[in-house]
Amino acid sequence: MKIAALAGGVGGAKLVDGLAQILPPEDLSIIVNTGDDFEHLGLFICPDLDTVCYTLAGLANGDTGWGRREETFNLLENLQKLGGPGWFQLGDKDAGTHLERTRRLNGGQILSQITAEFCRAWGVRQTIIPMTDQTVHTMVDTIEYGELAFQDYFVQRKCIPRVKGFRFDGIEFANPAPGVLEAINKADAVVICPSNPWVSIDTILRIPGVSPALSTKTVVAVSPIIGGRTVKGPAAKMFLELGLLPSALTVAEHYGDLLSGFILDNVDSDLADLFSIPTVFANIFMKTHEDRRNLAQDVLHLIRAL
Amino acid sequence: MKIAALAGGVGGAKLVDGLAQILPPEDLSIIVNTGDDFEHLGLFICPDLDTVCYTLAGLANGDTGWGRREETFNLLENLQKLGGPGWFQLGDKDAGTHLERTRRLNGGQILSQITAEFCRAWGVRQTIIPMTDQTVHTMVDTIEYGELAFQDYFVQRKCIPRVKGFRFDGIEFANPAPGVLEAINKADAVVICPSNPWVSIDTILRIPGVSPALSTKTVVAVSPIIGGRTVKGPAAKMFLELGLLPSALTVAEHYGDLLSGFILDNVDSDLADLFSIPTVFANIFMKTHEDRRNLAQDVLHLIRAL
Repeated sequence: MKIAALAGGVGGAKLVDGLAQILPPEDLSIIVNTGDDFEHLGLFICPDLDTVCYTLAGLANGDTGWGRREETFNLLENLQKLGGPGWFQLGDKDAGTHLERTRRLNGGQILSQITAEFCRAWGVRQTIIPMTDQTVHTMVDTIEYGELAFQDYFVQRKCIPRVKGFRFDGIEFANPAPGVLEAINKADAVVICPSNPWVSIDTILRIPGVSPALSTKTVVAVSPIIGGRTVKGPAAKMFLELGLLPSALTVAEHYGDLLSGFILDNVDSDLADLFSIPTVFANIFMKTHEDRRNLAQDVLHLIRAL
Repeated sequence: MKIAALAGGVGGAKLVDGLAQILPPEDLSIIVNTGDDFEHLGLFICPDLDTVCYTLAGLANGDTGWGRREETFNLLENLQKLGGPGWFQLGDKDAGTHLERTRRLNGGQILSQITAEFCRAWGVRQTIIPMTDQTVHTMVDTIEYGELAFQDYFVQRKCIPRVKGFRFDGIEFANPAPGVLEAINKADAVVICPSNPWVSIDTILRIPGVSPALSTKTVVAVSPIIGGRTVKGPAAKMFLELGLLPSALTVAEHYGDLLSGFILDNVDSDLADLFSIPTVFANIFMKTHEDRRNLAQDVLHLIRAL
């Protein structure tokens, strides 16, 4: 069974890792959000893309979910001593990725090609594709500060400002990266990972051509909301601030007609009757390596049943 | 006694360290070559300036003479794994310096100001000044490849190409950095460190205004050539390729009328009668911390005697 997964950062990477434990590598393609990519200290940084790549490469930090394992922070420590900005946790190994990516981008190589070559170097055999090779900036409209660049909202201001809405700057001119539509078209089903619907998945869905390609496909989503809360990140807080109940049901309604099936956490079993599409209950929390595989197994079961 | 020292990288930094062991910090200013500064991976790198700063900050690697002590190379290792260039030994701590310098330069701060602020952060109390805030590129004209940028000649090609001459690109438009002429004017004497005359010291001397300022001063030079060889670096090889005998005498002749006195190594005592200016014999090799101080002491003795 060929699967195309749409993923953001940490939560997405975990499910993708579970799918990778089951599927042959050639049957798994992952399309990753790049709306939170940003330039920092002259480096072109792709947080979601790196998290997915590091995870499948076995290089990710299991404790934080982002960054590299056995990482050092000697660069950042010296930079901060000299008065440089410390708000972004730039590890030494990670900085090597950003420097080489920036060098290649400045040399004219495109992000999807760079990502493919990095994956080859890291021994990742699944296909990881950035949603687009063009620049899309996720902008968070807030009550306190007006529109903020995503990393400003997310890292510098720690998701504290109250959200009014979102804008994906440049998305109307963005094309799907080479391989994105092909991955969707050849897939037997598309999995929307338990990533933030507003700032991770919507970005991918709004790339011109992606939603139409999905409309003919079996699409299942895994709820990023468990018992009204998120495991990590501001999704539940965003729902509330937008006047919506943070709930697995609200997530399913958000994706609407796109979905063929939905996976909720076991703790939300009381919501079962509220859904008009097939649902499955599972352990979405994914604490362990086995939890990832088990959730992926549940996702594939649902797909087979549809 | 107020001293202004002209310095390149490793050899210069060692003597400067010796002087710093003796003189009160406010009495020592160091004017450093920036002709070998270069951009690499988008980072603005100042090898000589960093070597002098790290040395006086007590942060230098005592074994190599350049780079940081207790350095890690995690960035470089990951960068190379991804196909990035490994010819420049970019340490993690060192990369923090370059990133912050580059950030500040891109923000409009000038190199001399950045250097002063870095020195303050590192607790360096002597005055370290880049020769200029403008861009000067030392170009090495070679038989095999024509003109090479200095780092290309020095690091990538390991000083193997045969030298025909040198050019300091941009030097005619360069001004001495703020503090350079002031440091020379207020100094009781100027010390030319045992650095490469062709590519470290000449660069400083050719900055418009520097040589005229030196002409009224007591200037002593320490030979970078010991028994016809250099401790490190290609100076002796360059003399030979330019048709000159690599010798302490040739160094003194190279600086000519500028000099009031000259320090040779003890092994060159047979050359004594060939000099027309006062000379002193000393241990120039500087293996230990004490050797540095002893040589500095010899330099100051000669200055007092002049």
